[in-house]
Amino acid sequence: MKVTKKSGKEAVPTIVVIFGGTGDLTKRKLLPAFYNLFLAGWLPEEFAIIGLGRSAFTDEKYRAHLQEGLTEFSRTGEPKADIWDSFNQKITYLQSDIQDAGAYKKLGDKLDALDQAWGLRANRLFYLSVAPQFIEAVTVNLHEAGLANEVEKDHLIVEKPFGKDLESARHLNKLLTQHFQESQIFRIDHYLGKETVQNILAFRFANALFEPLWNRNYIDFVQISVMEQVGVEDRGGYYEGAGALRDMIQNHLLQLMCMVAMEPPVSFEAEEIRNRKADVLRAIRPLTHEQVTRYAVRGQYGPGWLQGKQVPGYREEPGVDAQSNTETYAAVKFYLDNWRWQGVPFYLRTGKRMQEKTSTITVQFRPVPHSTFSNKLSENLLPNRLTINIQPQMDIRLRFTAKRPGLEMELTPAEMVFDYDTCSTQTPEAYETLLLDALQGDATLFMRSDQVEAAWEVITPVLETWESRPSLEFPNYSAGMWGPENAEALIAREGHTWAVSNFYNGQKKGK
Amino acid sequence: MKVTKKSGKEAVPTIVVIFGGTGDLTKRKLLPAFYNLFLAGWLPEEFAIIGLGRSAFTDEKYRAHLQEGLTEFSRTGEPKADIWDSFNQKITYLQSDIQDAGAYKKLGDKLDALDQAWGLRANRLFYLSVAPQFIEAVTVNLHEAGLANEVEKDHLIVEKPFGKDLESARHLNKLLTQHFQESQIFRIDHYLGKETVQNILAFRFANALFEPLWNRNYIDFVQISVMEQVGVEDRGGYYEGAGALRDMIQNHLLQLMCMVAMEPPVSFEAEEIRNRKADVLRAIRPLTHEQVTRYAVRGQYGPGWLQGKQVPGYREEPGVDAQSNTETYAAVKFYLDNWRWQGVPFYLRTGKRMQEKTSTITVQFRPVPHSTFSNKLSENLLPNRLTINIQPQMDIRLRFTAKRPGLEMELTPAEMVFDYDTCSTQTPEAYETLLLDALQGDATLFMRSDQVEAAWEVITPVLETWESRPSLEFPNYSAGMWGPENAEALIAREGHTWAVSNFYNGQKKGK
Repeated sequence: MKVTKKSGKEAVPTIVVIFGGTGDLTKRKLLPAFYNLFLAGWLPEEFAIIGLGRSAFTDEKYRAHLQEGLTEFSRTGEPKADIWDSFNQKITYLQSDIQDAGAYKKLGDKLDALDQAWGLRANRLFYLSVAPQFIEAVTVNLHEAGLANEVEKDHLIVEKPFGKDLESARHLNKLLTQHFQESQIFRIDHYLGKETVQNILAFRFANALFEPLWNRNYIDFVQISVMEQVGVEDRGGYYEGAGALRDMIQNHLLQLMCMVAMEPPVSFEAEEIRNRKADVLRAIRPLTHEQVTRYAVRGQYGPGWLQGKQVPGYREEPGVDAQSNTETYAAVKFYLDNWRWQGVPFYLRTGKRMQEKTSTITVQFRPVPHSTFSNKLSENLLPNRLTINIQPQMDIRLRFTAKRPGLEMELTPAEMVFDYDTCSTQTPEAYETLLLDALQGDATLFMRSDQVEAAWEVITPVLETWESRPSLEFPNYSAGMWGPENAEALIAREGHTWAVSNFYNGQKKGK
Repeated sequence: MKVTKKSGKEAVPTIVVIFGGTGDLTKRKLLPAFYNLFLAGWLPEEFAIIGLGRSAFTDEKYRAHLQEGLTEFSRTGEPKADIWDSFNQKITYLQSDIQDAGAYKKLGDKLDALDQAWGLRANRLFYLSVAPQFIEAVTVNLHEAGLANEVEKDHLIVEKPFGKDLESARHLNKLLTQHFQESQIFRIDHYLGKETVQNILAFRFANALFEPLWNRNYIDFVQISVMEQVGVEDRGGYYEGAGALRDMIQNHLLQLMCMVAMEPPVSFEAEEIRNRKADVLRAIRPLTHEQVTRYAVRGQYGPGWLQGKQVPGYREEPGVDAQSNTETYAAVKFYLDNWRWQGVPFYLRTGKRMQEKTSTITVQFRPVPHSTFSNKLSENLLPNRLTINIQPQMDIRLRFTAKRPGLEMELTPAEMVFDYDTCSTQTPEAYETLLLDALQGDATLFMRSDQVEAAWEVITPVLETWESRPSLEFPNYSAGMWGPENAEALIAREGHTWAVSNFYNGQKKGK
């Protein structure tokens, strides 16, 4: 089956090799994504998945293990027996120690065998779903075994974290590009594959209506909030060395900011889009260490109540230091030094154990320059506001002022709403989008090395300041709240407040 | 009970005198409106209605007659017995010949008696719900009897038509202003009292978002459509001398155009709003007689099918000449000679026996200046469009382009919708709004003499051309269609098409 996609390229014969094939990500996200691509007819006829792991699985056992995951985590639910039967034949397992060069010999043999059976040299997609400390071993071994030598055909997908600071990110990029071309490397940030995130570009650049208003003359401020309801869960060990700034702001939130703030691209070519996004990161006004206290706020959750249940504080979570200085909440104010955005604050915030799960971009417009209405009427005049709800609610809302129906001229806030539900029954998962892009060699939604490094540069002063001066206040917010009080003060200084999702229309939707 | 309204004035003691008190308008619209104002607590304690008519009604019989109308036509349905009992005591009837000066003597006695009973000089609101040829008699007699001498307290409400051409309108205005001050005269166009129409001003001037786009730089064209499903019904006699241009465009549609096109007013004072509206009418580029064929299209319905029923043509309707040259459809293209709107066509159209009943304002924005997307994708790129549905559907819709949910970057038209239903259970009738305004002396939504005359001036070349050259094509559209084919050609000349209501989201709502 030959299919074309946004890149205009065909989904050509491909072998996917998953390092970390027995891991959680493979079971929960990767396999369901590939299966759903298969279901929808996107995969080429010649397609294979080779899972690598230390466990002693037979192919059969490995397939059964993945089938379980599919039933539990796929958006399409339990696979139909006959479809699963024809799909699972494409999956094999290779028990291996990824630090051992011998494993790559065996892998090479498998790859060659498939190529021979198909009578062609298939594309190869190496998915590095491994802990950061193993990236080097895989990269070097792949290179030395010569398994990914065809620049046009062979790609690596690298999962975040892309380093833990600017230095380590540079090191990682150097390592990768020493052995492979930059064009072979897909750094995946699944946030960028989300339907609502992709739509930001369509919304901005397929409409003539918003772009003339999309600048400092009309926009008062921008807020990007990614609020999680979960705590650190079983990731305490990892999270202790990360924190909200690294885990969320350096990647997801700064990427969202790029999409909101970027200049109109000439085309939708991968390099063009990524150039325009990198421009935004480079335009962010660097913070000095002295400014950090005024531009950034950190928080850590203490015990509290969430949805009627008592939940422990961060320091009580498994794998977490009882004196931990790791932030589970971060809010930062950025300014962009360019013509379009000079003076417009971008407020980014993220936190764990928030009252609700919600990812939202809020673009608030300036107030009316002159109120035609009487003073009394004008009290209800709220500025226009565009809200892009990313998840779990997926919609775009435009707040405006209308006449309240009735005999008096009274003004009332109203909303125009576009709900994704009305135009689709099944929205694909972010991983489906991104894996298909990778299969088709489309790098638009993946991170280039300069983007990653620029994002680290942006947050470095905050990272350094916070690490060098442990917080004396932690924990400073209770689980189930909206974060520390300081976060309100951060934004109140400019006369602003954090947007509460769905201010107007209280209805919520679970995913 | 003292209540204040947008004018800030109180509803003071008032006697309403209805000339044409036994007519259809009184029964269907005026009495239900007053009753609903009473229900909602808007009427002053000292309030009376005196109905005048030629029929021999007692007060009791007159009240019963109005009660019937209330039950049938009021949006609040059949009145509750006890409330009706307390309301109907305010209503009395006076059998009279309005051309006879003696009748005004009797009316004066009634007014004086009420004043005496209340111990004050109540305001007087004379509602002239009479055929045009009686306006002069009522005006002169009222004046000569001295019943409306107090300029601040006494007002006349005059129903359309305000003349049948510029000359007769000037004559009528001269007649009225000879005997009364312009400030005493409320020329009523019930269209302006509609909730959705009033909201145009709130939408434009209580929001900072739309005004920067509201000009020739961003707007491609504006359409105003008032489509009726009914034919001429039992008004053939009147309609033969009127036609769609006089009956709809000269008043309703040009007024809507004023609200869309006016400059931002300094305040919501009546004179300020009416000045800004009059500015629009004066800015309309005058048509020469030669231009009429290219700028205006007329139509007359022939027999056809509507909602599964066969309906007669206009020339077969009762009271209509079998060779009638009266248009039941009119479409006109206007340009405004001012900075804001230079070069932007305003298309106005109205017709009877249309496929659907719908009153809609469509503001179409220019296309994107550069398509970032591939040519194939751009095929689905429709320009942004703001649709204000006035009736029977009441909503505001913003058409934009979004990414179609799915794995490919596909563009699809989408809509943000604001529905009035979501913010009110009961929307007041236009007459309630306007009568309360009149009771409170607020002239904002009424027509000033210069507005009326300017509107006649605008359509005069079309009127004259059409009258001097009878159509050879009539009837030129079948009942149940969207009008004559020429109307498509009129607008196609600029590369435009008539907006079909609810292009995107097919759902309709009955009222």
